[in-house]
Amino acid sequence: MTLLDGKKTAADIKEEIALEVKNLKENGKKTPHLAAIIVGNDGASLTYVNAKVKACERVGFESTLIRLTENTTELELLNQITSLNIDDNIDGFIVQLPLPKHINEQKVLMAVDPKKDVDGFHPTNVGKMALNLPTFISATPFGILELLERYKVETSGKHVVVLGRSHIVGSPMSILLSQKRTVGNATVTMCHRRTKNLKEFTLKADIIVAAIGIPEFLKADMVKENVTVIDVGITRLADASKKNGFRLVGDVAFEEVSKKSEFITPVPGGVGPMTIAMLLKNTLLACQRSNS
Amino acid sequence: MTLLDGKKTAADIKEEIALEVKNLKENGKKTPHLAAIIVGNDGASLTYVNAKVKACERVGFESTLIRLTENTTELELLNQITSLNIDDNIDGFIVQLPLPKHINEQKVLMAVDPKKDVDGFHPTNVGKMALNLPTFISATPFGILELLERYKVETSGKHVVVLGRSHIVGSPMSILLSQKRTVGNATVTMCHRRTKNLKEFTLKADIIVAAIGIPEFLKADMVKENVTVIDVGITRLADASKKNGFRLVGDVAFEEVSKKSEFITPVPGGVGPMTIAMLLKNTLLACQRSNS
Repeated sequence: MTLLDGKKTAADIKEEIALEVKNLKENGKKTPHLAAIIVGNDGASLTYVNAKVKACERVGFESTLIRLTENTTELELLNQITSLNIDDNIDGFIVQLPLPKHINEQKVLMAVDPKKDVDGFHPTNVGKMALNLPTFISATPFGILELLERYKVETSGKHVVVLGRSHIVGSPMSILLSQKRTVGNATVTMCHRRTKNLKEFTLKADIIVAAIGIPEFLKADMVKENVTVIDVGITRLADASKKNGFRLVGDVAFEEVSKKSEFITPVPGGVGPMTIAMLLKNTLLACQRSNS
Repeated sequence: MTLLDGKKTAADIKEEIALEVKNLKENGKKTPHLAAIIVGNDGASLTYVNAKVKACERVGFESTLIRLTENTTELELLNQITSLNIDDNIDGFIVQLPLPKHINEQKVLMAVDPKKDVDGFHPTNVGKMALNLPTFISATPFGILELLERYKVETSGKHVVVLGRSHIVGSPMSILLSQKRTVGNATVTMCHRRTKNLKEFTLKADIIVAAIGIPEFLKADMVKENVTVIDVGITRLADASKKNGFRLVGDVAFEEVSKKSEFITPVPGGVGPMTIAMLLKNTLLACQRSNS
């Protein structure tokens, strides 16, 4: 069993990006600049967005954090987005989700210039992804592709079963892995809550991507020997034996499934740490595209 | 075995659209107006585009055919597209493919205003389709959804196997059928040239969508009893016994597969006739959206 170590891989990627930024600076080129907008005071969202800003600093990017109050109107937010769209100094930006209920999330995501949409959430970028055109692939799917590529997990001709059809993970993963691309060319089955006899599918899978948000859903008796497992789930379970009172578990019963696995991502330390690294990679890409 | 009769269904849809147009006219509303651009003199393309124009006339739409010469420059074509984008009288328009080799097809498709892109080829519309947002679903996938719906073919919880990952049929079909929608909620496996042991997949399928362009590829020994088969392929095979010297065949060995099928589309007269009907439906939709 080989652990697909997202923590280490993300650190490698960040180091590569830092080197690239150093090169850009030495050659008098523009330094990549990521901006992030956050509306309101949600603690978890603030933690995420601060981690992104800090990651920018570590690799040598410029970063701008724009904090708007909870009662910001939709129009004010849209105006802020327009400012970032036309600001040549900003290569890419994100709007931290979720937004307060009085703001239409879809309308906001649609307002971001696709060229600066480093989260890859704009329909134009999702469409380009589906059409296998150059785009920004959103961080979680992009991170999974990168992990599979760096650990040389063969996907071509393999049977992949994706659990969960969310727009941010399951659906794009199923599209990407069936495409003609380096990590791709797989036969992909997309399973979800309406799937009957799920075990029949998972038992046949060479690779399983679990993204349903049900803790330890995938058990050892549902997978074949030498399966590769990508665990996207992350749930806090109360655990009195832990100092902070909880432990993080994925959608996979790691202890038992890992015994049958060729490759498997741990939780935490698997897919999770990859997301910020891929956001940085998209920002670097945005900067390179606007320079060329 | 029930034949999924595309010819009859398409005629029904056109009749419904004609009624709707009559209503619009009687209520002093705008008549839907479809424009089509064709570049060059390719015989097959001219036949297709003329059929579309004729179909418009039959349902009471206004239509405009713009014929450009083979040596039209890319810029001239892009200018023509801009004119249609800003012309309030035009609800939707299409650029007949293929284009001459000196014109970048992707650039042209990107220039069409997504709101008028009734072919549903613009990345923004493909992305909206993938995100299950209101959009224009392109004619062939839209026609297949409509056939399945009108014949009340149950898709929820069924195992669908899609053969072929093309951007215009296979890929969108696999996305649409796995989504939460009336005709959807299926467990979908996307198969293609890199799939190993294809027969293992097709033998388990409740519904097969064949879109690979290989005549009579799907044989009776590859399907289970009571399968539903959607045949998107259409190939001319030389046939001396026919007056015109050829016969049209699909990707399915119809004679033998139909004996095991619950529902099956014939070729010709299945998916094919649905496409123009769905183009008209998208144009009506575009007109209704711009009126509202």
